[in-house]
Amino acid sequence: MNMEEIIVKTRDSGSLNREEIDFLVQGISQGSIPDYQIAAWAMAVYFRGLDAEATRDLALSMAHSGDIMDLSEIEGYKVDKHSTGGVGDKTTMVVIPLVAAAGVPVAKISGRGLGHTGGTIDKFEAIPGFQVELDKKAFVAQVNKIKAALISQSGNLVPADKKLYALRDVTGTVDSIPLIASSIMSKKLAAGADGIVLDVKVGSGAFMKNLDKARQLAQTMVSIGHGANKDVVAVLSDMDQPLGQAVGNALEVAEALATLNGQGPKDLIELSLHLAAHMLQLAGQHQDFTAAYQHVSHLLRSGAALQKFKEMVQEQKGRLLSADQYYGLPRAPVQYPVLSEQKGFVRAIDCEGIGRTVMQLGAGRARMDDTIDPAVGLILDKKRGDRILKGETLAVI
Amino acid sequence: MNMEEIIVKTRDSGSLNREEIDFLVQGISQGSIPDYQIAAWAMAVYFRGLDAEATRDLALSMAHSGDIMDLSEIEGYKVDKHSTGGVGDKTTMVVIPLVAAAGVPVAKISGRGLGHTGGTIDKFEAIPGFQVELDKKAFVAQVNKIKAALISQSGNLVPADKKLYALRDVTGTVDSIPLIASSIMSKKLAAGADGIVLDVKVGSGAFMKNLDKARQLAQTMVSIGHGANKDVVAVLSDMDQPLGQAVGNALEVAEALATLNGQGPKDLIELSLHLAAHMLQLAGQHQDFTAAYQHVSHLLRSGAALQKFKEMVQEQKGRLLSADQYYGLPRAPVQYPVLSEQKGFVRAIDCEGIGRTVMQLGAGRARMDDTIDPAVGLILDKKRGDRILKGETLAVI
Repeated sequence: MNMEEIIVKTRDSGSLNREEIDFLVQGISQGSIPDYQIAAWAMAVYFRGLDAEATRDLALSMAHSGDIMDLSEIEGYKVDKHSTGGVGDKTTMVVIPLVAAAGVPVAKISGRGLGHTGGTIDKFEAIPGFQVELDKKAFVAQVNKIKAALISQSGNLVPADKKLYALRDVTGTVDSIPLIASSIMSKKLAAGADGIVLDVKVGSGAFMKNLDKARQLAQTMVSIGHGANKDVVAVLSDMDQPLGQAVGNALEVAEALATLNGQGPKDLIELSLHLAAHMLQLAGQHQDFTAAYQHVSHLLRSGAALQKFKEMVQEQKGRLLSADQYYGLPRAPVQYPVLSEQKGFVRAIDCEGIGRTVMQLGAGRARMDDTIDPAVGLILDKKRGDRILKGETLAVI
Repeated sequence: MNMEEIIVKTRDSGSLNREEIDFLVQGISQGSIPDYQIAAWAMAVYFRGLDAEATRDLALSMAHSGDIMDLSEIEGYKVDKHSTGGVGDKTTMVVIPLVAAAGVPVAKISGRGLGHTGGTIDKFEAIPGFQVELDKKAFVAQVNKIKAALISQSGNLVPADKKLYALRDVTGTVDSIPLIASSIMSKKLAAGADGIVLDVKVGSGAFMKNLDKARQLAQTMVSIGHGANKDVVAVLSDMDQPLGQAVGNALEVAEALATLNGQGPKDLIELSLHLAAHMLQLAGQHQDFTAAYQHVSHLLRSGAALQKFKEMVQEQKGRLLSADQYYGLPRAPVQYPVLSEQKGFVRAIDCEGIGRTVMQLGAGRARMDDTIDPAVGLILDKKRGDRILKGETLAVI
């Protein structure tokens, strides 16, 4: 077996068998296959695709290229959620406490943001003192104690995916459904949960710009999960405009807290309840989705989820000031309102543009080694469909 | 401008402007663009193609990535020919003396063979003592003296093409018409002739397996040539079976000599006269192709071309023994006949298979650093359409 044959077979058939996939993935993580052959292979997949079996095998093989998290010491059925990346997407901060408050353990491993979409780790780190680097023992102990913990992806998890992603990022081969699906699922499989709810974003602010591609990505990931004997559900959600009103790390924490406090924006509340209900259903708490939805709605209204969020922050050494209107979160020294130059209705919002603007303000990274300013961001005062008067505030930067 | 944008533009549009092509080609030859981006780009071209302007610019830019042969000190209109590679293709050895005997200068720069097709340099080197490494001054002087000289491609000619070809060779991106056409034409443009006749092989033993692709390659190369203000003609010729009967370096020299001596196989004679006539026509010796064809036919029959070949061998220090039946060429110590196991007609010949067999016997290279055995090869006693009896000799290895 050699890499040139694997490239040619992929190029001509879009198919590889298990042995070929293992050869490829081992070669990627061990560095025995040169980068130029990996890059040519990725471009062949971009154009030719990869069939369902090969895509599943790629995800599985990448998951096994490094450590697999062993969560067996955590009692109960472990659930995980993953979003394909959006602008203003703070659902994880609402969903973890909702699900944990229902007694279902959430041992969450998250990544940092790259590009125009934010990362959950960056958002939690906007809370002063919040520690995302727990060792395995502390992580497991915290989940057993309060049913929730969140750590940053580190160590030797999916080295093949890291290497492949870094190459795809500079060779125009990111935008390929089998490569995106196997990359995400390799991380989810290595993260060790029993059930996974996938939130596939679709719209101008998402990686998937149209419904067809989003559905295809969702189906591909679900099929990989089933092939790996995991329970997986995918939800398609709108990303034609930012979720909620806040974009930027500390601003999003504040909005998540407001939501847990019963004052959240409708779209954020609905999506969070929806995802959490699916997670409860996967965990076997409810046969019926409506019952699961009512259960998490109750946990939100009763303040149980807010209480759980505060427990989690406290366990991970974060400091939130309940007395302060902004919970003691970092705030930008300057607020600049953007005023409408005309009257009318908001017909569309350049969602990716907003994501990029906030990233350039310092809330995100263009490169992996950029540092983050947690305070900066933007609050949208108006969203799609809203009526606006001339001179009215559209957003505050 | 950066290489990632160039990859994405190629991937999405199959088009690049002159500045982008120059950036790419300079990056390839100077090593400032990493191999993995070049490889991904080549695979994008494989699938997406490259439009006519970009393909022409690629050839021109690669031609100018190194030295351009300045043949201005050679008197007259310089013609060149190029074959896309076949099995048993010894036409260059017949065509050079034919054209030179007509008084048209041929300053030929050839390559060594790689894969199942032979290289002209390897064939001439089967002549004991024949020198293919002349310096520029000696090369020019010889063409001015006897109208013909042949040297091996060396020095700093088309460095970008060399680098790109080496990468394509190991990344499954050889078989792309714009890349093949620009690679060939970059070398032809750098070789400095005024007019070029291209012999595009089509069939089971050629890189182009069908007529459509061969025609497309021919048109692409002609269009590049015209875009570079060169006179170019392309001929499509059959490579479903080896040309002539001999495959292997010394055996092919012997067959070329036999042909110049009036005893050649019909297909080889016809193709050689055809190509030579086009070259004379390009050089302006004849308006009419039939007249040019009759002219070269006469030069073959009269022995003038054979005389020219001997002059060329003598100038380049080769030794041919006219007294010997095999001209003193190296001969294999063992001859092994392949006998037919049944009677019938030859319906097809596995031309590429024959090329590979002879290469594996030692006549060619699988890798660029393999050494060549000039003596080994194969003589086909039967060709397509021939009647055969059981036990009759099909070929001698």
